[in-house]
Amino acid sequence: METGLIPAVRRLISDDDRVISATMIEKKYLSDALGRVIGRAEALVFPVSTAEVSALMTYACRHSIPVTARSAGTNLTGSTVPLTGGLVLDFSRMNRLLEIDTETFTATVEPGILLADFQHAVEAHGLFYPPDPGEKASAIGGNIATNAGGMRAVKYGVTRDYVRGLEIVKADGSVLNLGGKTVKDACGLSLKNLIIGSEGTLALITKGILKLLPLPRESKGAVVAFSSLEAGITAVNPLLMSAPAAIEFLEQKVVALGEAYTGLSFPLSGWATYLVLMYHGESKNEIQERLQLAESIANDAGAKDFFVIDEVESFNRIWQIRGCLVKAVEAVSEQEPMDIVVPINRISDFIAIAHQLEADSGLRMVSFGHAGNGNVHLCLMREGRSAEVWEQDLKTVMAALYRAIIGMGGLVSGEHGIGIAKQPYYLENTAPETIALMRQIKAVFDPQNLLNPGKSYQKILV
Amino acid sequence: METGLIPAVRRLISDDDRVISATMIEKKYLSDALGRVIGRAEALVFPVSTAEVSALMTYACRHSIPVTARSAGTNLTGSTVPLTGGLVLDFSRMNRLLEIDTETFTATVEPGILLADFQHAVEAHGLFYPPDPGEKASAIGGNIATNAGGMRAVKYGVTRDYVRGLEIVKADGSVLNLGGKTVKDACGLSLKNLIIGSEGTLALITKGILKLLPLPRESKGAVVAFSSLEAGITAVNPLLMSAPAAIEFLEQKVVALGEAYTGLSFPLSGWATYLVLMYHGESKNEIQERLQLAESIANDAGAKDFFVIDEVESFNRIWQIRGCLVKAVEAVSEQEPMDIVVPINRISDFIAIAHQLEADSGLRMVSFGHAGNGNVHLCLMREGRSAEVWEQDLKTVMAALYRAIIGMGGLVSGEHGIGIAKQPYYLENTAPETIALMRQIKAVFDPQNLLNPGKSYQKILV
Repeated sequence: METGLIPAVRRLISDDDRVISATMIEKKYLSDALGRVIGRAEALVFPVSTAEVSALMTYACRHSIPVTARSAGTNLTGSTVPLTGGLVLDFSRMNRLLEIDTETFTATVEPGILLADFQHAVEAHGLFYPPDPGEKASAIGGNIATNAGGMRAVKYGVTRDYVRGLEIVKADGSVLNLGGKTVKDACGLSLKNLIIGSEGTLALITKGILKLLPLPRESKGAVVAFSSLEAGITAVNPLLMSAPAAIEFLEQKVVALGEAYTGLSFPLSGWATYLVLMYHGESKNEIQERLQLAESIANDAGAKDFFVIDEVESFNRIWQIRGCLVKAVEAVSEQEPMDIVVPINRISDFIAIAHQLEADSGLRMVSFGHAGNGNVHLCLMREGRSAEVWEQDLKTVMAALYRAIIGMGGLVSGEHGIGIAKQPYYLENTAPETIALMRQIKAVFDPQNLLNPGKSYQKILV
Repeated sequence: METGLIPAVRRLISDDDRVISATMIEKKYLSDALGRVIGRAEALVFPVSTAEVSALMTYACRHSIPVTARSAGTNLTGSTVPLTGGLVLDFSRMNRLLEIDTETFTATVEPGILLADFQHAVEAHGLFYPPDPGEKASAIGGNIATNAGGMRAVKYGVTRDYVRGLEIVKADGSVLNLGGKTVKDACGLSLKNLIIGSEGTLALITKGILKLLPLPRESKGAVVAFSSLEAGITAVNPLLMSAPAAIEFLEQKVVALGEAYTGLSFPLSGWATYLVLMYHGESKNEIQERLQLAESIANDAGAKDFFVIDEVESFNRIWQIRGCLVKAVEAVSEQEPMDIVVPINRISDFIAIAHQLEADSGLRMVSFGHAGNGNVHLCLMREGRSAEVWEQDLKTVMAALYRAIIGMGGLVSGEHGIGIAKQPYYLENTAPETIALMRQIKAVFDPQNLLNPGKSYQKILV
């Protein structure tokens, strides 16, 4: 089927240099941020407009060619790996900020715009886009496709909560608009919410209308030290009463990796665990009141130090260290990054189980994450293991960890998505009727199974 | 098919008095709050458990019997009218508050629990359920099925934002759990969000896990008077910068109807339009700061009076008047309650068009609503018209109004849902491809088309 593919695609795309044929495709376009699984494709295309995406998809549909979407490719689950050949559509050149509408508090963007660029642009208008995954070089399209979460979700919610409208291209090439600039919507089935988090399996996202908030006038943070991870985690629930915008936990051992990776120094040292708190407010007084409340709660919970971050520079330094942790761990050893989520009152139970499994298996683990959301990033580290031993150990330990999470009412993924990395565990721990419904809905949107085949709820291909 | 229906249903339900046969069914169980369209059913059943619902649905599936769900039946769109006979399942006796989990900030409820009862119960635990539609005697099941909005949506969002998990019974009688107590979820397609707002067409909701917030420590309100509706509406956008929990607008003529209906008096009189503001905060200071900011914004916008509501009694009185308005209008004349939503910067344009249409058609209209969300309740009043003239005038004026809304990027329903009342306008103003997708998804969940046939995105039956 691919004989005439390249010439055909070139006819649909105005610049030849935006169509790369199979042998010329760099590996990074066939993988995710970790690069463990490399897929294959007949062509890599960089569309620049909805019209081009629609034309490409119409062609792909007519010739039954699989299509895998990507933008920045910063995912950690293999969800951008093209498993069955065909086209890779890279949206990184469809990255315009089309409109900031200060009257409706919305922005309209193309999918390839990077989160950091978008956040800076709206802040220049006194506005604020709260979703804040660690990876600021991720693209908004990917954020929507995975319902990305992040640090500020504890106060502001996740990407889903900020998507007012979408423009999508369906598997048959048709263009559809879902939602819009209105705040409320009680019309029919929420197809928009079905697309959010669908990891490119239902449709291609070509535009997003995003909700913005007024930029908080004041913001301040604190770092709280604890003598054990358990003590720190136990303090999280009471600290939620101080209404933080973010409440992250970091073990000392992962802070050390972050310091080494960034060359920056964390403001405290010598304690087992830190909670990093951030407060947003309308006045200095308001923030001061919240910080005082937090300090008193932290002291009651046995905190060893409460360090208010007064300078913007320290503040940025801490968040830079926090933001780089997946990469910092990856720099010292291959690792498997889990992003499990449990009900917020079960984090310490989960951490205790993880510690026990670490002791039993000898597989080193480091943890950090979104304490206020019950969302734990647990990195399992390969270190000196042979490929065979690593694979075996990983399977055993991950299966045990996921079993424990499910038993606590938790989920396999809080924010990274399923992709291929978590697929076996997700499918094993989800009701077959639920998976069957998802697959039937997939068939409604994409009867030929062209869009990102083999990911998430679909049949496992690798 | 109905010959053996009553004996068969009685075998599945433990108490005979919870099964009512066709001729004995009171009309209110075959309609909505307005009672304009009366449906028909072979049996009305009051299930008390998921097991009973599952057994009933399994039987209905085997014998191809339509099933219409209802609880309080307070909807205004005919969405609880059984159009094709069969069973009416009334969930009002499945109304238990199963759990308030203060550690995870969630509550688990049955669908029949009334909003007011639920709100009071969680407040007794220092917790807060923000969604707040005017009708406090509505049931949570119906709130979820229509994605109900309400007054506090401007700060807190709508019902969708507070549903963590659902237990549903599918058309084949199987029971499925979607979501849970976790805060984040990045697993597969969001079936939970598909069920929310689906008006009973995809599945029966038998349990909800709802997100709660800490109860705000302080709360205070204000009423602001303006010499015209236009002046009041123009002040809404600037006033949003003071971060109100609610910002409602009321025309004097509708306030008068509310006073007459409740026998209560509104604190201000003699002005054309009022904005009612509510603030939530953690300290008296915080509230005071916001009220001062609001007053200064209101003055800049030409407000004629700014009345701070100091006493709880006045506060409750105002919200009682606001809460009864649909009923207050209905008490003086049959009416068509619209709940259109436009982008927040287009409310005054919409109101201007409505006023022009009122003048041109002679059809009296009163308006009030959720100014901060662009969500306008516009009641078209029948008054002395004959049935024929009323139907004709209504069709002409509604078609024109909906055309105007769509032209502004608005939607047919912001919070009531589509049901049958708005179905022709919704279908006319939505892309056929979008409707086709919804119908195909319906067929995935309910291949025999048993669940609430003929509503919302489905084919029109009446």
